[in-house]
Amino acid sequence: MRIYDIIHKKRKGEELTDEEIKFFVSESVNGNIKDYQITALLMAICFNGMSARETSTLTIAMAESGDTVDLSSIDGYTVDKHSTGGVGDKTTLIVTPIVAALGGKVAKMSGRGLGHTGGTVDKLESIEGFRTTLSGNDFLNQVNKIGLCVVGQSGDLAPADKKFYALRNDTATVDCIPLIASSIMSKKLAAGSKGIVLDVKTGSGAFMKSVEESEALAKTMVEIGNAAGRDTVAVITNMDIPLGNAVGNSLEVIEAVETLKGNGCEDLTTVCIELASNMLTLVTGKDKATCVEMAKGAIADGSALNKLKEMVSEQGGNPEWISDTSLFPKAEHSFEIKAESDGYICSMDAEKIGVASLLLGAGRNTKEDVLDFSAGIILKAKTGDKVAKGETIATLYANDETKFESASQKFNEAVGFSTDPVEKQPLIYSVIREK
Amino acid sequence: MRIYDIIHKKRKGEELTDEEIKFFVSESVNGNIKDYQITALLMAICFNGMSARETSTLTIAMAESGDTVDLSSIDGYTVDKHSTGGVGDKTTLIVTPIVAALGGKVAKMSGRGLGHTGGTVDKLESIEGFRTTLSGNDFLNQVNKIGLCVVGQSGDLAPADKKFYALRNDTATVDCIPLIASSIMSKKLAAGSKGIVLDVKTGSGAFMKSVEESEALAKTMVEIGNAAGRDTVAVITNMDIPLGNAVGNSLEVIEAVETLKGNGCEDLTTVCIELASNMLTLVTGKDKATCVEMAKGAIADGSALNKLKEMVSEQGGNPEWISDTSLFPKAEHSFEIKAESDGYICSMDAEKIGVASLLLGAGRNTKEDVLDFSAGIILKAKTGDKVAKGETIATLYANDETKFESASQKFNEAVGFSTDPVEKQPLIYSVIREK
Repeated sequence: MRIYDIIHKKRKGEELTDEEIKFFVSESVNGNIKDYQITALLMAICFNGMSARETSTLTIAMAESGDTVDLSSIDGYTVDKHSTGGVGDKTTLIVTPIVAALGGKVAKMSGRGLGHTGGTVDKLESIEGFRTTLSGNDFLNQVNKIGLCVVGQSGDLAPADKKFYALRNDTATVDCIPLIASSIMSKKLAAGSKGIVLDVKTGSGAFMKSVEESEALAKTMVEIGNAAGRDTVAVITNMDIPLGNAVGNSLEVIEAVETLKGNGCEDLTTVCIELASNMLTLVTGKDKATCVEMAKGAIADGSALNKLKEMVSEQGGNPEWISDTSLFPKAEHSFEIKAESDGYICSMDAEKIGVASLLLGAGRNTKEDVLDFSAGIILKAKTGDKVAKGETIATLYANDETKFESASQKFNEAVGFSTDPVEKQPLIYSVIREK
Repeated sequence: MRIYDIIHKKRKGEELTDEEIKFFVSESVNGNIKDYQITALLMAICFNGMSARETSTLTIAMAESGDTVDLSSIDGYTVDKHSTGGVGDKTTLIVTPIVAALGGKVAKMSGRGLGHTGGTVDKLESIEGFRTTLSGNDFLNQVNKIGLCVVGQSGDLAPADKKFYALRNDTATVDCIPLIASSIMSKKLAAGSKGIVLDVKTGSGAFMKSVEESEALAKTMVEIGNAAGRDTVAVITNMDIPLGNAVGNSLEVIEAVETLKGNGCEDLTTVCIELASNMLTLVTGKDKATCVEMAKGAIADGSALNKLKEMVSEQGGNPEWISDTSLFPKAEHSFEIKAESDGYICSMDAEKIGVASLLLGAGRNTKEDVLDFSAGIILKAKTGDKVAKGETIATLYANDETKFESASQKFNEAVGFSTDPVEKQPLIYSVIREK
């Protein structure tokens, strides 16, 4: 088998065999295929696509290219969630305690933030003492004990994805559905859970800007998951504006806690109930409406909040900070953004708000950047809201007040005003499951 | 300017600016663009093509990426020819003496053979003493003195092409018209002649298998040449069967000499007169019919043969071998291929015959292979000819008789028989010039 022939075949628009795809993945990881051959094939895939079979085979081969997490010692139904990334997306902090409180086993690896999107691991580390690095045994034991553990990615999971992603990032081959889907799903498959719920974000703050693209990606990922023997559901959610009101690490943890207390804002609560209830359908086999009620009940009775506290405590964090969020350190400085005229907010570019938060110190431009956990943004008004001239629409927080100038400028770029009322967009566009 | 953006633009199907193309070429040669980015862009070009402007800019930038030959010291009109490569293609040995005998200045760099196609430099080296490596000054002086010099490629001509070609060869991006055209024409532009006649081969022994593809390639190359200020003409010629009757280095020199003596076979003579007369239209400005008569005259009056002898003599070769080709060493062994039944030859795959010749020792599988100059094939019958059972259709020559087994097998694979008469194919399909 020669990589030349594989590239040539895909260039001509023919389907690759399973053997050819496995050869490509294993020999790329072994270093026997040159980077310049990998990128040529990836570019040909961008043009000629991949069938569902090819995409599943590629993804499974990538998942099997390195370490895989063995969750067989966990007693119960393991369920994972994944978000394609957004701004103000603290859903993992809310959804996973709900599901665990209702009997799901959540053994979750999360990522760090880069660029305009934040990462769950960073948010959790804003809690005093919280450890996001555990040994494999401690990870499994905690899931068996309390049903929930969230850590940073460890081990050499899907090294083929690492290699391909780095090359795609340098060669303008990132935005290609089979390649995005295989990148996401290879890591989810390697992470071992039986059930997977995907939150596919769509809109200005998401990688996928249109609902159609998001649905195509979601459909591909659901097909891959099911082909690999995992129960997979995808929810298409709005990320045209930030989710919830808080953007920034400890600010988002505080908002998550408030949501688990039943005080969450409507959009965030709705998306979290949607994600949690879909996970619960997989865990319990019950119908969606029942699972929605169960999820709401876990908020109402405090069991989900208690589950979060348990996890924080198990992972070395101070659970008092969850009981009393005033214990989180506050940023030394704040800066109010005010409406310049009467009217309605007609747009709020989530990506730009993510960048404003990054500029305040809440995010990273490069992997080496150190975070300011208390920096970020609290939105007081969002798209569709009526505002009066001089009214505060957001408060920026930072420990370095020199950062307000560029951050407020970026924030103002993100927000559009209109004199006419503006219709609110849907929060949930669709749910995609196996037929 | 970032290569990422350039790749992205071409992937989206947009035209690149001249600046972007020049950046790509110069930074690729400088090593500032990674090989895996080069191949991604080349693959995107295979899918989305290039406009005439983009292709010309690419080619000129590639031509200017290294040394260029300065022919300004040559007194007269400099004219070059190039063949896209075929089997039994000894036209340079015939055409350039004709043109030089009639006043054209031919300062030509030729290649060596690789794979199934032979190279003019190898053929010339089968003449005792012939030197294909000259200093730049000796090269120019010889052209000024006798109007003709044929040497091997020297200097660092079009290093961008060397780099791109090696990568294309490993990534299935060779067969792409803008990339083929820029590869060929970058070297021709760097070689400095004012006029360029391209012999674009089409058929089983050629890179381009169909007339349509060959014409598209020819048109692109003529556009490039003219855009670069060179007078460029392309002739589409048949390479479905070998050209002439001889395949192999000294065998082809002998056939070239016979053709210059007026004893050439019809197909070879016709193609040579066509190429020479097109070159002469550029040199003299006269009409085609006149140039055809001039070319035929240079054969009839012996002046072209004398010009070849002059060149051999100037470059250290023994001109007696041209006067008396029996002086060329003969292969020690020969092997006759006989018709197995009465009928007509209906096909004669030129590429396979090239491989048979290579197997006899006349060609190279790798750059390091040493040639057997007297090895090769003499065809006694060609496509369309009627043959009787037991009649010799070809004689194979080699100094190593163990080679006949594989070579004769390959030769037999190349030849098809029919009981019905077969129509002969055209030799010249079309001539493409600037409108």
